[in-house]
Amino acid sequence: MRAFVLRKVGEVGVIEKPVPEPGPNDAVVRTTAAMVCTTDVHTMRGAIPVAPDVTLGHEAVGVVHALGSAVEGLAKGQRVAVSGVTPCFQCDSCQRGFSSQCLGRMLGGARFTNRRDGNMAQYFLVNNAQANLAPIPEGLSDHKALYATDMLSTGFVAAEHAELALGETVAIFAQGAVGLSATIGCRLRGAGLIIAVESVPARQDLARPFGADLVVDHTRCDPVARILELTDGQGVDAAIEALGTPQTWEATFRVTKPGGRISNVGYHGEVPEPLKIPLEPFGYGMSDKQVYGGFNRGGRGWLRRIFRLMETGKVDPTPMTTHEFGFDEIERAFRMMASKEGGIIKPLIHFDADSA
Amino acid sequence: MRAFVLRKVGEVGVIEKPVPEPGPNDAVVRTTAAMVCTTDVHTMRGAIPVAPDVTLGHEAVGVVHALGSAVEGLAKGQRVAVSGVTPCFQCDSCQRGFSSQCLGRMLGGARFTNRRDGNMAQYFLVNNAQANLAPIPEGLSDHKALYATDMLSTGFVAAEHAELALGETVAIFAQGAVGLSATIGCRLRGAGLIIAVESVPARQDLARPFGADLVVDHTRCDPVARILELTDGQGVDAAIEALGTPQTWEATFRVTKPGGRISNVGYHGEVPEPLKIPLEPFGYGMSDKQVYGGFNRGGRGWLRRIFRLMETGKVDPTPMTTHEFGFDEIERAFRMMASKEGGIIKPLIHFDADSA
Amino acid sequence: MRAFVLRKVGEVGVIEKPVPEPGPNDAVVRTTAAMVCTTDVHTMRGAIPVAPDVTLGHEAVGVVHALGSAVEGLAKGQRVAVSGVTPCFQCDSCQRGFSSQCLGRMLGGARFTNRRDGNMAQYFLVNNAQANLAPIPEGLSDHKALYATDMLSTGFVAAEHAELALGETVAIFAQGAVGLSATIGCRLRGAGLIIAVESVPARQDLARPFGADLVVDHTRCDPVARILELTDGQGVDAAIEALGTPQTWEATFRVTKPGGRISNVGYHGEVPEPLKIPLEPFGYGMSDKQVYGGFNRGGRGWLRRIFRLMETGKVDPTPMTTHEFGFDEIERAFRMMASKEGGIIKPLIHFDADSA
Amino acid sequence: MRAFVLRKVGEVGVIEKPVPEPGPNDAVVRTTAAMVCTTDVHTMRGAIPVAPDVTLGHEAVGVVHALGSAVEGLAKGQRVAVSGVTPCFQCDSCQRGFSSQCLGRMLGGARFTNRRDGNMAQYFLVNNAQANLAPIPEGLSDHKALYATDMLSTGFVAAEHAELALGETVAIFAQGAVGLSATIGCRLRGAGLIIAVESVPARQDLARPFGADLVVDHTRCDPVARILELTDGQGVDAAIEALGTPQTWEATFRVTKPGGRISNVGYHGEVPEPLKIPLEPFGYGMSDKQVYGGFNRGGRGWLRRIFRLMETGKVDPTPMTTHEFGFDEIERAFRMMASKEGGIIKPLIHFDADSA
Repeated sequence: MRAFVLRKVGEVGVIEKPVPEPGPNDAVVRTTAAMVCTTDVHTMRGAIPVAPDVTLGHEAVGVVHALGSAVEGLAKGQRVAVSGVTPCFQCDSCQRGFSSQCLGRMLGGARFTNRRDGNMAQYFLVNNAQANLAPIPEGLSDHKALYATDMLSTGFVAAEHAELALGETVAIFAQGAVGLSATIGCRLRGAGLIIAVESVPARQDLARPFGADLVVDHTRCDPVARILELTDGQGVDAAIEALGTPQTWEATFRVTKPGGRISNVGYHGEVPEPLKIPLEPFGYGMSDKQVYGGFNRGGRGWLRRIFRLMETGKVDPTPMTTHEFGFDEIERAFRMMASKEGGIIKPLIHFDADSA
Repeated sequence: MRAFVLRKVGEVGVIEKPVPEPGPNDAVVRTTAAMVCTTDVHTMRGAIPVAPDVTLGHEAVGVVHALGSAVEGLAKGQRVAVSGVTPCFQCDSCQRGFSSQCLGRMLGGARFTNRRDGNMAQYFLVNNAQANLAPIPEGLSDHKALYATDMLSTGFVAAEHAELALGETVAIFAQGAVGLSATIGCRLRGAGLIIAVESVPARQDLARPFGADLVVDHTRCDPVARILELTDGQGVDAAIEALGTPQTWEATFRVTKPGGRISNVGYHGEVPEPLKIPLEPFGYGMSDKQVYGGFNRGGRGWLRRIFRLMETGKVDPTPMTTHEFGFDEIERAFRMMASKEGGIIKPLIHFDADSA
Repeated sequence: MRAFVLRKVGEVGVIEKPVPEPGPNDAVVRTTAAMVCTTDVHTMRGAIPVAPDVTLGHEAVGVVHALGSAVEGLAKGQRVAVSGVTPCFQCDSCQRGFSSQCLGRMLGGARFTNRRDGNMAQYFLVNNAQANLAPIPEGLSDHKALYATDMLSTGFVAAEHAELALGETVAIFAQGAVGLSATIGCRLRGAGLIIAVESVPARQDLARPFGADLVVDHTRCDPVARILELTDGQGVDAAIEALGTPQTWEATFRVTKPGGRISNVGYHGEVPEPLKIPLEPFGYGMSDKQVYGGFNRGGRGWLRRIFRLMETGKVDPTPMTTHEFGFDEIERAFRMMASKEGGIIKPLIHFDADSA
Repeated sequence: MRAFVLRKVGEVGVIEKPVPEPGPNDAVVRTTAAMVCTTDVHTMRGAIPVAPDVTLGHEAVGVVHALGSAVEGLAKGQRVAVSGVTPCFQCDSCQRGFSSQCLGRMLGGARFTNRRDGNMAQYFLVNNAQANLAPIPEGLSDHKALYATDMLSTGFVAAEHAELALGETVAIFAQGAVGLSATIGCRLRGAGLIIAVESVPARQDLARPFGADLVVDHTRCDPVARILELTDGQGVDAAIEALGTPQTWEATFRVTKPGGRISNVGYHGEVPEPLKIPLEPFGYGMSDKQVYGGFNRGGRGWLRRIFRLMETGKVDPTPMTTHEFGFDEIERAFRMMASKEGGIIKPLIHFDADSA
């Protein structure tokens, strides 16, 4: 089979690999569609050390190709989605609710690419398949289902950690695919006022129908001052960091009121310096502010709940898809995702059944 | 001033009373609009013992007429709303978060009519005014603001106690004004599937735009069987009882899956018998089901959060208003509310400024 | 091997069975010690329909005898404990945190005896072994470890569902092994005042060192009146039902203050009638009281946390063990547990290695 | 009356002031005993700008001297305690549960010294007296009651924000009076293993009976390495920062496992630099670690719950009192608190009734 891999830091390409064989609790899925994630770009740039020629990608859907001997309740040929995070759900950390940190390892649930081949290939292996494969409901397109695997999941987790009471105010920094998903998530949790911070017009235009009441363009004003002004000087009840820069991180502390929640889903590995919390907006440690750093959590039950929100028409993330490609164009899609050229937000990759 | 009072059990009428005088922490509000609540009907029928000639009503808005000497941050003439529940926020129970049960007394926060004159009068007194009076934002009509005082507040509390995770399923029994508000509340908390149980067509028609994905008519089918069928035999993650009958109460246990939450806001005083939990659907006491019995909670902050949801266009409850009356027609409005004739859901009562 | 089984309703006995074979995710444990649970007595009396000649018992420890091919991180010969509840941790219900209700089935995590042979045998099978087998730390006796498998786990779950804030008051109805464990649990959660209701002197004597500040003997006074008196007429913040009778169930509502939590771990299958909630103490459905019906939850991580509390000397449940027997005396132990003769609380059953 | 005041930054002294007069919701308390807090030392050094000649102190008990006209349920001559934090409990922030941040202002509940005279004087004023004055139960000494006003309250809040599940592990950095109280708090919440970090022998000696299972002396080893070693390389489930230095702050991130909670009650105003979160132990923002910065919360209900824990013998903080002084020796007590000479932890100040 063909797989899109990281040859070495900075260099990607398609190579031939054997179709994986499932262990007793695994499944092998034949990929029908996938999306490229900015995290893949971070990985390509060397964010974390990975095995040579490891397959990239962690957002994919497909059909069950093979099942391990101990897997129950699934059938070959079934359309399935799998989260970008595939926890074991057996270890102490998973049992405690921290499935993203499977086995008690930092980001341990993120197995694709990090600990094993990713799923930007014609076939991919899924551990603990019973817990991780979610059948895609009839009537839900691959395209929509794909968004549940990472973008919506991560954005919704961000919204959950904002711990919004009904009618509270929230500011969301950056409206890339995760930020936009967080905007949807905050709307779903009953935020009273959602302020999105974003300068790219196409993203601003998506933010509004997804739930943003107001959009602040940080290239035209000081976003901290503007958000305070929009909240009568009080600040917001919660702020979400969905970018991963020192500036946006610090801003979350400055725009939140005492008692506010800061929910981070930005990846802060680009600038190799500690994250800095400004003293005064943190009340010198006594502001009743709460900071949470999370990401995608994985699991079949979670995927199914996100599917349900799409099935009943409450969420349609597909306007985020700005580009479509065949698998043979994957390198171009990837390069665009790295450069963000062409106003790309999410590229959808079609895997032709014939080429499988 | 004129006040609409309970003369004795079963008999209501308008009588003359002196305009109340505020104590140091009180305010007196001149009423501009009010709504009749089914609770007033329960009270008329003798649900709880009240003082003779006590004023009825607990859903009103108006303008500040007089302020106690110790009240800060409010001004005469300001448009204000006050919740049907007016806790002290000083006692141990309020400090612990149970403001509905102010002073540790059952329903102790519900002072209007129960412990003091209600607000279906030209003027009414508000205890702990600083904590309980919420200025109505410019641009928010009295009509909308009224809904925050009881219906939305109670319905949203019901939704909160359903403790919905994003995308979960919920069934709501009855779509009167509180049930409809609970439907809005469940949509605001991100329910994936909302099933409303209701047989009156006009209420069914409101349920859908307010958030119901499906409406089950219990006069045409067994609602328990139907809800189980609609959820693949699993049952719903949560059920809300917004009616107050033994049948709907029991049904909430039968339609919820193990681990489900039952959130009650129905008043169960009509049938003088213990509430019965069926054994098998409660797992003989070990089903991980949680039951919560709550109602309106009161407080300025809560009112303001509900206002915000209306200001940003996320909630518009006014389609629930089926009838409008002048204060001189209050008896007729009340009788209709008691008989539910004319398809009444909520009647809006206008207080003419001239008549004050 | 020999197994203690339910021959038919009302009749138990030891029979010969083959040693079980593990599937890929299972383990087989050679039993070294076990305890009889009152639940076994309920089962013997026909509480739930079970397979003929099913092995009884769900509280056992032992050493790993055989491991399925897919089980990692465990070794033959290792001393292990397994909870009386053995969830899969893979299904939606487990992933949502309701592991006791595994597979979305009522009490679905309770596989021993209910869905498969129990562990009152020389060998027993454990599903999802990686998630369910907890190595017993060196220095922790089999005797202590046994208590983690059900009594402490269930009692602690009861305490958790009481949702005690530091310094709150709690009443615990009945001080059998689960009630005593709930007493320990409430002490561990920082209750300010623990009132135990119990009439048996030996149990009263255990309640005090385990954490009870006061013991109310319901045979000498009206326990509801007494608890109200002891709390200045306010009632307690939470009540735990650890017996399973209509009287104690109702009492929990009468002794709790508005806003109180009722945590049930009693089994209510003995009296085939709905559980009754008295109206007035439930505020006609609006008291802000919360009712939770739970039991043991299972899982390695949970067992390990209970072990830690024993390792650091914070909990020693062994004074609950009133009797000891060899496996060849199991019928006598069982009969005593059924009749509660001889002041029995928990009988410890030794499995002689030689007899294995 | 005599009051111990901050003359200017760096200079303290006793001066004469008029006895305060209560407003309608206030009380005036005649002080019988007080304690000096390290926060007073920070204030003396100029941590926050305060009014000239403002009275210092926020830990005091006494008897009611005068009551405002609107205060109910209290009587002159009654022994009372008042928290160091005296929220209004009326504002939106208090109603939302963030009473420490009263009026939405950073640390707004901390009125003593910061916004009004403190209580290190012969008489002091208490705002919102009904909500803030807690009668001291008969049989509870002034000495014990004093600890509820700040040390235990702050330490217990720290323990609460550690969000410990039963049996989890926690490390507490520094065992001054707040750290020792956090140790008690973690024991009360059912921690399985409590590791205290402290080098002063007298404090180490207190840590153990208060609940520490292990004490790590950071002057003899690298405390991070040692804590990881003590937890099999896993790290602790939660860490509490009770000192307020960049080193201990950073260490909390390094010793916690993924999914861990960092609960800060240290005051970080001494080093005028942002707080730094090390990237790798924070998972580059995705570790599921939660950080909470809190302090004392105030309120009568909270004080009463702490009193109850002392009344039933579960907590006795008085071994923390290393020194006793008369009010005429207050300057010496204060200087010792600043220099920490003589192994001082908490000094108890007696106010002689005669001198009043």
